[in-house]
Amino acid sequence: MVQIPKTPRSVPTSADVARLAGVSRATVSYVLNNTSAVRISEPTRRRVHEAARELGYVPHAAARSLRAGHSRMVLMPAPAFPVGPLYSRFIRELQSALGRLDYTVVQYGSVGLHGDEAARAWAELRPVAVLVPGSGLGPQGVTVLKRSGARVVVTVGPECVEGAHALQMDHSAVGFAAARHLYERGRRRIGVVVPAEDGLEAFSVPRLDGVRRALTGTDATVTELPLGYDEGAAARLAADWRARGLDAVFAYNDEYAMLLMSALQDVGVAVPEETAVVGADDLMLGRLLRPRLSTVHIELPSGRDLAELVDRAVRDPAAAPETRKVLGASVVHRDSS
Amino acid sequence: MVQIPKTPRSVPTSADVARLAGVSRATVSYVLNNTSAVRISEPTRRRVHEAARELGYVPHAAARSLRAGHSRMVLMPAPAFPVGPLYSRFIRELQSALGRLDYTVVQYGSVGLHGDEAARAWAELRPVAVLVPGSGLGPQGVTVLKRSGARVVVTVGPECVEGAHALQMDHSAVGFAAARHLYERGRRRIGVVVPAEDGLEAFSVPRLDGVRRALTGTDATVTELPLGYDEGAAARLAADWRARGLDAVFAYNDEYAMLLMSALQDVGVAVPEETAVVGADDLMLGRLLRPRLSTVHIELPSGRDLAELVDRAVRDPAAAPETRKVLGASVVHRDSS
Repeated sequence: MVQIPKTPRSVPTSADVARLAGVSRATVSYVLNNTSAVRISEPTRRRVHEAARELGYVPHAAARSLRAGHSRMVLMPAPAFPVGPLYSRFIRELQSALGRLDYTVVQYGSVGLHGDEAARAWAELRPVAVLVPGSGLGPQGVTVLKRSGARVVVTVGPECVEGAHALQMDHSAVGFAAARHLYERGRRRIGVVVPAEDGLEAFSVPRLDGVRRALTGTDATVTELPLGYDEGAAARLAADWRARGLDAVFAYNDEYAMLLMSALQDVGVAVPEETAVVGADDLMLGRLLRPRLSTVHIELPSGRDLAELVDRAVRDPAAAPETRKVLGASVVHRDSS
Repeated sequence: MVQIPKTPRSVPTSADVARLAGVSRATVSYVLNNTSAVRISEPTRRRVHEAARELGYVPHAAARSLRAGHSRMVLMPAPAFPVGPLYSRFIRELQSALGRLDYTVVQYGSVGLHGDEAARAWAELRPVAVLVPGSGLGPQGVTVLKRSGARVVVTVGPECVEGAHALQMDHSAVGFAAARHLYERGRRRIGVVVPAEDGLEAFSVPRLDGVRRALTGTDATVTELPLGYDEGAAARLAADWRARGLDAVFAYNDEYAMLLMSALQDVGVAVPEETAVVGADDLMLGRLLRPRLSTVHIELPSGRDLAELVDRAVRDPAAAPETRKVLGASVVHRDSS
């Protein structure tokens, strides 16, 4: 029988498990890593699992990845922008799809790191794939990540970066759809809310561009309306609303639309008679407002599709980076427009 | 001079940096890990940094932590419940405070893992500290984590677990505050919304308990109102509202309050005259509703305080686990109650 030390080391190792189970360290590794290449009898497997449980041993992902040459860790830096419910759901779907493909998804909460400096911090964890939301990563950052062993870098946002796969989300389609809808409803003097909050430019600038693009060559005008997300700012914007002579507003998203619509109603501006209001994101709250809020429904890619792209690229890291345009936008017409 | 291979290995190592800089691997490690214990001349430091940059080398956090015996990684499993803006802000604050203390915060997106199974998956990453939101981790899981080298385990939620520090968030205080307010406003037949959605029981059950506790020994009655977060369910609840004879409702949070209040108004129930409505979370949207929504403002602990607790406990892992009650609740009285 094997000797078990009375006071175990504070962190048990696979050698301890091997000793207790009476097998080699290699066998412990085969069993606990579920290697299918090596046949190991059921009783031996059981003995290894029991010994691991008794000692409280779990394999060290990092040591395993050092041996294997690459990890199964997919790193997702936390986005620098405030995340809405739509995007949260996309992230959850993606994590669960990658989990089913046996990857470990970790989100890196890098606050205050930018661009290539951030890429170096991520590289220290030696992920096999990195999914970068938003913008800011440059070609240099992609190189740092790849040289540190990342087989795949995918950007998920408005831009493409050399060397990386891109799920390109073109938010100008959102503004385009809203503006076309308002134009078709007979509106000609169209305001566009531009949030004053940091981190939203990557979305608000293309949305505004989309509005302009939709109305180019028509008789409609476009007016930018900077707006902070607070009641006071909305009340000030509403106070001189009639002086602006606008007959419609695309309010960036449903939350800003709700903020502005309440302020307009407070000063007696009739929605939609005097001013039509359109939001975006198709949140539940839009259906709860009176009048019910018209909105742009945004279709994000499925988390499963992105997970499969990652997995394919991990298996074939030499394949050329793909760019996919993945954002669908369509107006849901309710009572506010 | 040092020979530089024409085609560098795909992943450069510290040995490559040492060769290019003409120094030892130990020197590379001292310089890149910012070790202050060893004096190294400025020109040498510069040479090492230049070589690392040229080769695209970044240190391997896992290898470094294998050498050091522990990592600087703080692991936060992603919560299993839908996260509101209040909680998101707390998490962001915490991450940034831990970042300033030189920890690397990673969120683990473990979908479908529970209890001790989840703890084993987290342990594979060998974090130095684990912050577990919500409930589900048992004393066994804490043991697994500690035996794998975690110096600190902190639960952030309704329960305390043996062996772990606890930031205990007692959500019964939220229901208690709401019920006291309604009682003082003369309401006696009080409904309590209980969300039908999975993952919210850890909050909704104590909130309901708090309402019951506040009204024990009074002449008020408490009625549970199960409600799914969709318009149809709210309309059905509103349809036979008058038959229930309720004069007030604590609607779990501001979002459910908005859902229910719209449905009540649609069937002509006057808020607050016939039925007072109170939400919780003090979201912006409550101020945008008409009537403006009364709510329970929830005070979470500051992220900085938790970061300091983690850092202290990492330095002194033998200290006895602390439990701190950290949730403050106070009513913000507006027009709906």
